[in-house]
Amino acid sequence: MGDRPVSFQILSDQRQNFVSGCVNFEDPNFNVSLPVFTIHGNHDDPAGAENLSAVDILSTSKLVNYFGKARVPITGSNVGSVRLSPVLLQKGATKVALYGLGNLRDERLCRLFHTPGAVQWVRPADTPAHPQRDWFNIFALHQNRVAHTQGAKNVVREGHLPRFLDLVVWGHEHECLADPWDSAEAEGAFSVVQPGSSVATSLSEGEARAKHAVVLEVARQSWRTFKVPLQTVRPFRFASVALASILPLDSAGARCEDPELVGDVLVELVTRLADEAMQERRGWRETRKGGSATRRETDAPSDVLSDPPSPSDLPL
Amino acid sequence: MGDRPVSFQILSDQRQNFVSGCVNFEDPNFNVSLPVFTIHGNHDDPAGAENLSAVDILSTSKLVNYFGKARVPITGSNVGSVRLSPVLLQKGATKVALYGLGNLRDERLCRLFHTPGAVQWVRPADTPAHPQRDWFNIFALHQNRVAHTQGAKNVVREGHLPRFLDLVVWGHEHECLADPWDSAEAEGAFSVVQPGSSVATSLSEGEARAKHAVVLEVARQSWRTFKVPLQTVRPFRFASVALASILPLDSAGARCEDPELVGDVLVELVTRLADEAMQERRGWRETRKGGSATRRETDAPSDVLSDPPSPSDLPL
Repeated sequence: MGDRPVSFQILSDQRQNFVSGCVNFEDPNFNVSLPVFTIHGNHDDPAGAENLSAVDILSTSKLVNYFGKARVPITGSNVGSVRLSPVLLQKGATKVALYGLGNLRDERLCRLFHTPGAVQWVRPADTPAHPQRDWFNIFALHQNRVAHTQGAKNVVREGHLPRFLDLVVWGHEHECLADPWDSAEAEGAFSVVQPGSSVATSLSEGEARAKHAVVLEVARQSWRTFKVPLQTVRPFRFASVALASILPLDSAGARCEDPELVGDVLVELVTRLADEAMQERRGWRETRKGGSATRRETDAPSDVLSDPPSPSDLPL
Repeated sequence: MGDRPVSFQILSDQRQNFVSGCVNFEDPNFNVSLPVFTIHGNHDDPAGAENLSAVDILSTSKLVNYFGKARVPITGSNVGSVRLSPVLLQKGATKVALYGLGNLRDERLCRLFHTPGAVQWVRPADTPAHPQRDWFNIFALHQNRVAHTQGAKNVVREGHLPRFLDLVVWGHEHECLADPWDSAEAEGAFSVVQPGSSVATSLSEGEARAKHAVVLEVARQSWRTFKVPLQTVRPFRFASVALASILPLDSAGARCEDPELVGDVLVELVTRLADEAMQERRGWRETRKGGSATRRETDAPSDVLSDPPSPSDLPL
C-alpha cells in the first residue's frame, strides 16, 4: 500500500487471469504501490467445498494478485485438462506474458502432461501491434522438479514444457539454485531458475546452501537476474561423517572404536560447524551494518538494460 | 469499499481504540464507504502465541475496525484488570462514546466484575467544548446474559454495569430481543437490546422466534431503534408436545397409547409446523418481490430525528 505509481499495465482479460477478477492496483478503492502476483503452493492449495485457501483471503483483501488457479474439469474417464492463459503485462516496448500454475497433485499433473491436448497453452494473438515474437514468456509453477527414482511419475520434466517459453521460475524445490540454467531437456529453448525456500526447513544438504531472492529484469527480449542474499536465514551447516576415515588407528592397526573417543570426535566436529555458522552470521550482520551487500549478475547486462539497481533500491 | 463519504469523525486516540491502530476510513490507501466496528465473539476470540483470531485478519485487511480487544494482565494472585476506553464518535452536535468488550471467559469476567477496581471505565474529560453529559454512551459486549441456575457465576449481570451508560448492545445470546428494554437490575438507568443470532443454530424455543437486525439512530441524547426482519433465515418451528393432553381416550376412558396412533398424531403435528414455516417463508418472498418490508419503531421519534429511512436506504 502506498503512493508509488505502478508503471506497467495489464493487457489481458483480468477476469480470466485473476481469482479476484481484477488486478489490485486498478481497483479504485485500494491504493497499491507494489503489486504482488502469486500462484499457490502445496501448503496453500485450494481445498474444501469452496475450493479456497489462504491465498484467496489475501486476494480478496487485495493484498496479492492470485493467478494460475487451475480448475481441472474431469468428465468420464478423462484425466481432465488445464488451460494456461497468461497475464499480459506491458511497460513501454517490453511485453511479458506471465503463465502460472499453482500446485496440483504431482502424479496428476504428470499424467496431464503425458496426455496429448490435456495441457493447453493459450498464446497471445499475433497482431501488427503486438507481434507474437515480441512477448517474453515466463512460466511460474510450484511442483516437484527432481526425480528421486528412475521413471518417477511424480515430477514435471523440463522437457514437458513448451519451447516458446523464455524463462521458467520453479517453485516448491527447497534448494536455492539462483543462477538460471539453460534447460538441457528442452535443448536450451528456455532457461530455468529455482530460487528455493526462504528458510531452511529440512535437515538436508540442499538446505545448507546460501539462500537468495532472485530479481529478474526484462527489457524487450533481453533479461538478467541478480541474486540478493538473504541475511536473516537461521544458520545451518550440514556434514556427512564417515567414522572409518576420521578415527585414529589403535596399536593393532585397527580403527579405534572407543565410544568416548567417537563422542569426542563428533563433539569437536559439531562445535566447529556451529562456530563456522555463527561466524558467517556475524559476517552478515557486519555487512548489513556497513550498508553493502553482495550482488552478482548472472547475465551480462544488455545495452537496453540500465545499471542494475543497488540493493537499497530494491522493493524488498 | 466505495466512494460514499463518511460523515462522522473519531475524536479519541485511535491507537488505544483499534487493534490496527487506525480507523480504516482514514487510511489513505483504502477507500472505505461503510465503516464497520466490531468486537470479537467466543468463536473468534484471540488465541495462540500471538493472541490472534479471524477478526485480526479482517482488521489487518482494513475490512473492519476491531475494538474492545482487552488485554487482561495478571500479576501474582490478582484476577487482573480490564480497562474500557471508548471510541469517541462525533457527527455535528451528536457525540457517541462507544465502549466495547470482546468475549472473555464468562467465569473470569464475572470474577473481574466482582473485584472492586478490576474493571475500569474510562470516561471522556468534561470540557466546555465536550461536556461529559453530551456523550451518548453505548456498550457492546459478547457474553452470557441469561443465568440458567440460581447464583450462576458465568453470566454478566446488567446490575454490574455502570449507570452512566445509555444503551447496552448485548451479543452472544441467540434469542432475538430486538425491542430495547429498560434494565430493571440497573433501575432503569440504561436500556438493553439483544439483536440475537442472524441464523437459527440450535434447536431451542428462543431460536424459533423471528430474527431481526436492529438499526440504531442517535441524535444528541435522543435515540430510537428499528427492527429489520431478516428474510433469508432458514424456516424453523418449535413446539412442545404433551401426549397426555392430545391423545384420544379409549373405550375404558384411558389415554390411548397405541404406538401407531401416537406416530400419526406426531406426523400430523410436524407436517402442520412445516407447512406453517413454508407458508411464512413464501410470504417473505412475496413481500420482498413487492419491495416493502415490515418496520416497527420502538421509540417514538424525537423531533431532532428525521424521518426513519426506508429499508431500501439502509446500508444492509
